[in-house]
Amino acid sequence: MVWNTNLRWRLPVTCLLLQVVLVVLFGVFVRYDSDADPHWTNKKMQENFTSDLENEFYYRYPSFQDVHVMIFVGFGFLMTFLQRYGYSSVGFNFLLAAFGIQWALLMQGWFHSYYQGYIHVGVENLINADFCVGSVCVAFGAVLGKVSPVQLLIMTLFQVTLFSVNEYILLSLLEVKDAGGSMTIHTFGAYFGLTVTWILYRPSLQQSKERQSAVYHSDLFAMIGTLFLWMYWPSFNSAVSNHGDAQHRAAINTYCSLAACVLTSVALSSALHKKGKLDMVHIQNATLAGGVAVGTAAEMMLMPYGSLIVGFICGIVSTLGFVYLTPFLEARLRIQDTCGIHNLHGIPGIIGAIVGAVTASCATSDVYGVNGLAVAFGFDGFKTNWNASMQGKFQAAGLFVSLAMALVGGIIVGIILKLPFWGQPADENCFEDSVYWEMPEEPKSTVLHPEDSTLKPSEP
Amino acid sequence: MVWNTNLRWRLPVTCLLLQVVLVVLFGVFVRYDSDADPHWTNKKMQENFTSDLENEFYYRYPSFQDVHVMIFVGFGFLMTFLQRYGYSSVGFNFLLAAFGIQWALLMQGWFHSYYQGYIHVGVENLINADFCVGSVCVAFGAVLGKVSPVQLLIMTLFQVTLFSVNEYILLSLLEVKDAGGSMTIHTFGAYFGLTVTWILYRPSLQQSKERQSAVYHSDLFAMIGTLFLWMYWPSFNSAVSNHGDAQHRAAINTYCSLAACVLTSVALSSALHKKGKLDMVHIQNATLAGGVAVGTAAEMMLMPYGSLIVGFICGIVSTLGFVYLTPFLEARLRIQDTCGIHNLHGIPGIIGAIVGAVTASCATSDVYGVNGLAVAFGFDGFKTNWNASMQGKFQAAGLFVSLAMALVGGIIVGIILKLPFWGQPADENCFEDSVYWEMPEEPKSTVLHPEDSTLKPSEP
Amino acid sequence: MVWNTNLRWRLPVTCLLLQVVLVVLFGVFVRYDSDADPHWTNKKMQENFTSDLENEFYYRYPSFQDVHVMIFVGFGFLMTFLQRYGYSSVGFNFLLAAFGIQWALLMQGWFHSYYQGYIHVGVENLINADFCVGSVCVAFGAVLGKVSPVQLLIMTLFQVTLFSVNEYILLSLLEVKDAGGSMTIHTFGAYFGLTVTWILYRPSLQQSKERQSAVYHSDLFAMIGTLFLWMYWPSFNSAVSNHGDAQHRAAINTYCSLAACVLTSVALSSALHKKGKLDMVHIQNATLAGGVAVGTAAEMMLMPYGSLIVGFICGIVSTLGFVYLTPFLEARLRIQDTCGIHNLHGIPGIIGAIVGAVTASCATSDVYGVNGLAVAFGFDGFKTNWNASMQGKFQAAGLFVSLAMALVGGIIVGIILKLPFWGQPADENCFEDSVYWEMPEEPKSTVLHPEDSTLKPSEP
Repeated sequence: MVWNTNLRWRLPVTCLLLQVVLVVLFGVFVRYDSDADPHWTNKKMQENFTSDLENEFYYRYPSFQDVHVMIFVGFGFLMTFLQRYGYSSVGFNFLLAAFGIQWALLMQGWFHSYYQGYIHVGVENLINADFCVGSVCVAFGAVLGKVSPVQLLIMTLFQVTLFSVNEYILLSLLEVKDAGGSMTIHTFGAYFGLTVTWILYRPSLQQSKERQSAVYHSDLFAMIGTLFLWMYWPSFNSAVSNHGDAQHRAAINTYCSLAACVLTSVALSSALHKKGKLDMVHIQNATLAGGVAVGTAAEMMLMPYGSLIVGFICGIVSTLGFVYLTPFLEARLRIQDTCGIHNLHGIPGIIGAIVGAVTASCATSDVYGVNGLAVAFGFDGFKTNWNASMQGKFQAAGLFVSLAMALVGGIIVGIILKLPFWGQPADENCFEDSVYWEMPEEPKSTVLHPEDSTLKPSEP
Repeated sequence: MVWNTNLRWRLPVTCLLLQVVLVVLFGVFVRYDSDADPHWTNKKMQENFTSDLENEFYYRYPSFQDVHVMIFVGFGFLMTFLQRYGYSSVGFNFLLAAFGIQWALLMQGWFHSYYQGYIHVGVENLINADFCVGSVCVAFGAVLGKVSPVQLLIMTLFQVTLFSVNEYILLSLLEVKDAGGSMTIHTFGAYFGLTVTWILYRPSLQQSKERQSAVYHSDLFAMIGTLFLWMYWPSFNSAVSNHGDAQHRAAINTYCSLAACVLTSVALSSALHKKGKLDMVHIQNATLAGGVAVGTAAEMMLMPYGSLIVGFICGIVSTLGFVYLTPFLEARLRIQDTCGIHNLHGIPGIIGAIVGAVTASCATSDVYGVNGLAVAFGFDGFKTNWNASMQGKFQAAGLFVSLAMALVGGIIVGIILKLPFWGQPADENCFEDSVYWEMPEEPKSTVLHPEDSTLKPSEP
Repeated sequence: MVWNTNLRWRLPVTCLLLQVVLVVLFGVFVRYDSDADPHWTNKKMQENFTSDLENEFYYRYPSFQDVHVMIFVGFGFLMTFLQRYGYSSVGFNFLLAAFGIQWALLMQGWFHSYYQGYIHVGVENLINADFCVGSVCVAFGAVLGKVSPVQLLIMTLFQVTLFSVNEYILLSLLEVKDAGGSMTIHTFGAYFGLTVTWILYRPSLQQSKERQSAVYHSDLFAMIGTLFLWMYWPSFNSAVSNHGDAQHRAAINTYCSLAACVLTSVALSSALHKKGKLDMVHIQNATLAGGVAVGTAAEMMLMPYGSLIVGFICGIVSTLGFVYLTPFLEARLRIQDTCGIHNLHGIPGIIGAIVGAVTASCATSDVYGVNGLAVAFGFDGFKTNWNASMQGKFQAAGLFVSLAMALVGGIIVGIILKLPFWGQPADENCFEDSVYWEMPEEPKSTVLHPEDSTLKPSEP
């Protein structure tokens, strides 16, 4: 099939249209929250704050910046491993995330920060918008190299919407705890993306197989992404937890889980190669599974050894997934998962949801203290007569809701994206930047000898 | 013309001389401010601080580190897009910034932190020194590839001095608000750099035209710079704002403006290419214009939608500038602007100054609260009887002062840099690392097959 | 000699065994400290905290994240300068650091955070674990390219242990101040690593000489490491200092020292080249020596000009070391120091220890205030009748203990690592990723012309 990949009008019109709509909706709906408004001076006096530091900004801003780096550099560079798709990986991720955070501010705002006729945004909204976009970045990994930027914008539009609905059901209706988003971000994002790529199945994709691999330097660029994700994940899982011990604990648990995950990923990667050699794909991806899988339970009393166990298991499961499951999914289930998000976000996300449900079920006032238990799970208001076991059941329910939303949503969005006029590349042009990017000419010769004769001699 | 580019004595002597002078001046003038001095323990008791956190360090340090990354990694890598100028982009930026921050601590210190015979430095001084150097990094973008490191040190020496004078006039005499430096940093830096490059016009620069473009991986390195600038810009614009809501609001506004700017940059980049393809130059640069243009107004009540509108406009204007204005400036006005700083810092800086002046003019106590208005614009002391409209007029005056300083200063410094003994490269050797750097020999063959026969076989 | 470098069973077994032991030990010993435990709500009330911000998390977490970046991206990428060893540099550093931080949490925990039968971990433990691993990363630089990942894990196991013992002797027995670890991290790490590489001397290493150098892009990757180390070093040296002015001062001193160090490194690099050209090795490494050398004294009243002087000297000494000392050590003392850690961490570490001892000796209550002096050096408890001069002597003693521990420990560990079954590479295969990594096939042609004929034409 011959596709028209000239996006000269489609991409500009899509971008400008979306941005104009966003400006109008922001104009109608979005205002600063009380901590970002000049009237905060009054609030400070009324609430008897002893210090300007009580502004929410100082609790959350460093974490926000770390999360921001994860979304734009982390996800963006993680996907640059493909030899001819670096511009698109970083550039399209940049585009979809920049659109997504604006749309997420609105969608999440209507659900969670809407009162007196306005959405009130503060630093926590910025973090949550980044989180929401994180789930789109996950899904992008599944379709990487096979879609046009217009398709990505459409996908982002729908996925952010569905994410916000799902998040509202989980956090506000089911009263689920999911600080690091094992369910809302990773499970939802992964299965949504996998469903979309399943709908967009390309039977002749092997025509661009030679570009669906790395070269030496592209793997190093990808490690920039991996490491920034890995290092800042403690901030990700603790960014919106309760002030104080919960944020502190979430960071420690994530740190532990990720460390353990590296060792088991390396172990399996070596063990599964006939000469014991390590595979960059595993080091780039499976080492991160531990961060996904403590997303829900990080702020709970998972205990440091519990975190290590979670990371231990996920490094193994994720690496096995890359070696055995990804080829199986592609061959048998026609799911072409470019980045292997099923192994990094799908299974670890489910594990994370289960770990969260079990950890919540086991919560006792011995471990948390009476106050601590009420604060940690919000056992007040209509949840006054909840107990830990009930919380655990609702946690489990949250997992199924997320999976259902992902599958149903993914099918619908996949069908929309299958329409032939979005500028998608032909099978033989997948994983190729030059379809959508003006490419630099390769230099005639990259070699300039240290004593280059083309340089004018310098005077003695 | 044959230039002597052997810097063996000129560069070392310049560096060592400058550094010795800095050591002496620091010895005579620089001390810790009260929050970085051990006597702070006493101050804490006297001022009845309830917490060690009241130390200014905790309000500003995370923002400082983000700004620091912008200056050294952000600007440094942004300029690595040239195929043979990566060492110089990162390395010279490193050098000039390391010198500049020390000199800026002194210059800004004399103007703003000098009392009891000493300059007192704290974390806010570090941020301001980084800001000042940011303006030099901007100007570096205009002359990139065409000057020697000695010239850059001379330029930095003068530019930091002029920056500090200009900043003093704006902030202390005109009482202008310019938290993110649309005027002091970007407008001043851009027009200063453009004037210098205009004076240094090289009529035969097309002789090194083939190196004045990117290769595949150099564009990816440049995206590291772009993204760290983009992500940390909210910290840049909020770093020295008032504690509390002002810092909070500045971060939100910058976040919004930058997001909108990405979409319109992409839209224009695609629309202006005959096949609708995106140009990496626009993605690397125009996407940042939104951060420049909310520099002045970020801490004001610009409103989230106002920020979106600013970003919206700047993405368009900046991309148009790259496509139409840069070639025009070079062909007609003899301004060779290597990085296109006119489009990223020049025009957006002016837009930012105007947006700031208008936003200040519109400030009312309805919007800010009576207290809030006084705090936001410092309407106390001799400004007690100022009103918003007056503030707006002074804001506008600040823009003209900055432009005048940049033009006059740029001409003088340009003439100094035109002297023939600074080791500048010949026209045919511009944009080439090997003039100033020991280059690695290229490997005979970069290809090592996975089962490389040069490797000894391992035992079974 | 033919080595078996197939790690299929050795590496997985080592990783899994270590990780299982860590899980068990964490299960038995590690719990959250009071600021990361849900009972913190009670502590808050008992200790009358006015704000959640009093949680140690908010004092230290931003610094922790910066240090974390230094360990994983900083050290990891700094070592990617080798043309064919990028995967191993980043990947093995990732592996050893992930293992090391877990083991360090235990070892340092037993010495410093063990009470009521448990190790209690909080954010400060995470920072200290990263610090401890920093010393292993330093030592890794000496043996880079010549050891297998199994050897690195064994080395990490022993070095973390020795580090913790040495740190305990210095900080707890000798009551030495060493906030930025000039002695405990850099001096110990460097001389430990140099001793190990001395024991592991490879007489035929010139067989892989052609890979022991950089290519153009590998040097740019290394600059990512350099810059993140350089930028975040103020956080490194201030991360575990006392709250308030000490943290603040440590950051300022480090900032100053590093800035001065850049100028003198550049000066010497140019002066020592016959055509005045700069050497990337010096820019990547010597510019950091100033951070090492203010490690001990950063939190003391070194004064800004004192910091500049330290940086000034270290840039010179370090660059001279790269030019003259490293070849001498290799030729005469049979110390093959791949990254030149002797110049970056060894000598500057010793300088740092001396600067610290002198600065401590000169401390007076005039400069620090009576309170300040007691707080800064902990002159209470059994140190009540100490004075500054005594502190200075103990500082000096700390240096000699660190050197002795490094030498003795390095010999023992070196001998263990010399055993022939750890999978080390043959001399002709050193500095080569493909020994331990599955390598990507190089593309047939990296050149795709902008109007690539392999791309299907798009419809008009």
